[in-house]
Amino acid sequence: MFEINGQRLLESLRELAAFGKVGTGVNRTAFTPEDIRARHWLRAEMEKLGLDARIDRFGNVYGQARHAEKAVLIGSHTDTVPNGGWLDGALGVMYGLEIARTLHDLQLPVAVDVISFQDEEGTFVPCLGSKAFCGVLDEAEVERAVAADGRRLVDEMAKADLPDVTLRLDPNRHIGFVEAHIEQGPRLEKGDIRVGVVEGIVGIRRYRVSARGQADHAGTTPMSMRKDAGAALVHLASDLLKRFPTWAGQNTVWNIGKFEFEPGAANVVPAKATFIIEFRDGTAETVAKLEENVRATIEAHANAAPVDIAYDSIGSVEPVSMDARMQALFRQAAEWRGDKPMTLPSGAGHDAMILAPVVPTAMIFVPSIDGRSHDVSEDTKPDDIVFGCQVMADGVAQICGAQGAL
Amino acid sequence: MFEINGQRLLESLRELAAFGKVGTGVNRTAFTPEDIRARHWLRAEMEKLGLDARIDRFGNVYGQARHAEKAVLIGSHTDTVPNGGWLDGALGVMYGLEIARTLHDLQLPVAVDVISFQDEEGTFVPCLGSKAFCGVLDEAEVERAVAADGRRLVDEMAKADLPDVTLRLDPNRHIGFVEAHIEQGPRLEKGDIRVGVVEGIVGIRRYRVSARGQADHAGTTPMSMRKDAGAALVHLASDLLKRFPTWAGQNTVWNIGKFEFEPGAANVVPAKATFIIEFRDGTAETVAKLEENVRATIEAHANAAPVDIAYDSIGSVEPVSMDARMQALFRQAAEWRGDKPMTLPSGAGHDAMILAPVVPTAMIFVPSIDGRSHDVSEDTKPDDIVFGCQVMADGVAQICGAQGAL
Repeated sequence: MFEINGQRLLESLRELAAFGKVGTGVNRTAFTPEDIRARHWLRAEMEKLGLDARIDRFGNVYGQARHAEKAVLIGSHTDTVPNGGWLDGALGVMYGLEIARTLHDLQLPVAVDVISFQDEEGTFVPCLGSKAFCGVLDEAEVERAVAADGRRLVDEMAKADLPDVTLRLDPNRHIGFVEAHIEQGPRLEKGDIRVGVVEGIVGIRRYRVSARGQADHAGTTPMSMRKDAGAALVHLASDLLKRFPTWAGQNTVWNIGKFEFEPGAANVVPAKATFIIEFRDGTAETVAKLEENVRATIEAHANAAPVDIAYDSIGSVEPVSMDARMQALFRQAAEWRGDKPMTLPSGAGHDAMILAPVVPTAMIFVPSIDGRSHDVSEDTKPDDIVFGCQVMADGVAQICGAQGAL
Repeated sequence: MFEINGQRLLESLRELAAFGKVGTGVNRTAFTPEDIRARHWLRAEMEKLGLDARIDRFGNVYGQARHAEKAVLIGSHTDTVPNGGWLDGALGVMYGLEIARTLHDLQLPVAVDVISFQDEEGTFVPCLGSKAFCGVLDEAEVERAVAADGRRLVDEMAKADLPDVTLRLDPNRHIGFVEAHIEQGPRLEKGDIRVGVVEGIVGIRRYRVSARGQADHAGTTPMSMRKDAGAALVHLASDLLKRFPTWAGQNTVWNIGKFEFEPGAANVVPAKATFIIEFRDGTAETVAKLEENVRATIEAHANAAPVDIAYDSIGSVEPVSMDARMQALFRQAAEWRGDKPMTLPSGAGHDAMILAPVVPTAMIFVPSIDGRSHDVSEDTKPDDIVFGCQVMADGVAQICGAQGAL
């Protein structure tokens, strides 16, 4: 057990937030000058405390503990969404840096490596850096990746003038990957809980459901002669939303976030209607069951409706489980420090999702004020930021001890 | 009983359709040069057959039978929607002209007056001409009326340089108003029926219903903490559409033609949702009952939902009944000619709606091919056009005879 330096942690987070600062937030999307400058700064900070610090062609920044054969890898990402918050990603990287600094100051054998992955937010390719680090990046995807504003990834990589190497995970060295992150939801804050231990990252299914009927004058066309695409989808959507709770697991979430009628005039029977439904759950079994129920319900409506109803899968992400033993160590660590940690799924994706299949992986969450993220208003109480880092340090010490790495 | 000249009717309709011709349709919105030229042409045609023909400051064209103290007024409008059909409005005016011509040719006492009203389609003011003719036009509305393209009605009236008079209905002279129109719906065609006798013009109620909840991340916000405006309105809309058949009269129609979610992203819980519902029926009692049921259903959902649901009335038109005796005469006339006429409501508005409160009024419909209207594809079989005029002539003869006007 050792005590991290909370003040130093907060100061370093603020120092990092100065790169691309926008009011209380940060605009530091991947491969902008601010992003690249922040990565060079981070590499220099790592070197100051004796880590063997490198940067690769994607901009991944990696600090390796010298004189250690095995290490826990700690990190996240330092890129942000446009006009994002100061903690999303940055928190997990600076926790790694603070824990390494503490070990260094105490002249303890340092058995943590620290990493900042590139483009987790997907300006070009979601989780670009962690995919490259784990050897699952498709180079063809790199070639064709274009940002929303038209910039090509290969051009930005050339402009950044980084060393032409690709840093890679070392299965013989890395005994685990640990990522801390803001929750981006309201559960910890509402429960007055300071640490969330992530059990898994949810799988996602997303469908576009559409109906094609016929546009008719809504005053002169008798009800019996209509092919109302709008009414058909309203009934289907209502039915799905009513049935979902009966299919769902405890942490399943679902949403119809988009709904449109065409032509969209008050006095015209809708010729076309479209909605998008998505659902997420942490277990593959539940996702599969939900998928089956959703498809069956859509098909039952399609068979009964006087219009053509069709659906397409427009997104699919498999759920990923976090390492059970590491989860238990982090729960224990939080309890030692006086918290009653919550075990919860991550409803959003993270670099840990890419690491988990190849190395034992854990995530902890700290509370998000009002659940906000991906906005300059994103924030976490300073005490909660410090507490989370202390719990991570304690947990990492346990992991290292258990593995003989300390 | 006298026979109209079908060939002459069709030729006159085609002659009128040349003013503003667009492919198979017509672009002759109120106060365009094409509209004003067509009105002067019509006045000249009326004069040729001995009617006392006048045009007023609004562009209403009125041909009065000389030597008659009482007359049936026949007409409709010659303005169109942008890129409209060749028959909407024009048919009813040319029926009047053909019937007057026939009486004139046969040297029978002419007891029909013919009229073409201005701007029934509402480029500036819906039913502008018939409102002025019936003395129910608000002059303040004339002053402020502006077309969608920014043209002011008063400027267009000045440019048209028309006589500064306002033609008015004469209650001592006009024993009835008769308007023929294309059905603008599919019922006659589907029923293989050539003449529809209109029992009334429907009343319309239109409501904008909206819900305000809270935008949240659809992956990280538990279901129990959401304020989903979209789900609330989907359930309300489905419930309304399911209940409507139990509230409706035989000819009630209803429609949800517009439905929108905001912000409208797949992974964001909808913060706002809006739909527009309208319903129409021919009787005031049914409209009132529907209105009560719709409001009660919305309010029940508003009381139960976790979001704020509100509604505004955004349109209200009262139903108008057609003269029962005149309806019977037209049904009889159609039967004499071998049709089995259908009695039906008009689901759209017409000049007859303005005339009905001040003079006994009747409308007949002829079939619309595929129910189409307000489009250049609008059409009616030539035989049906001629048949409808013959039925109108026979009916008008009966009305005149019954009133001692012939």
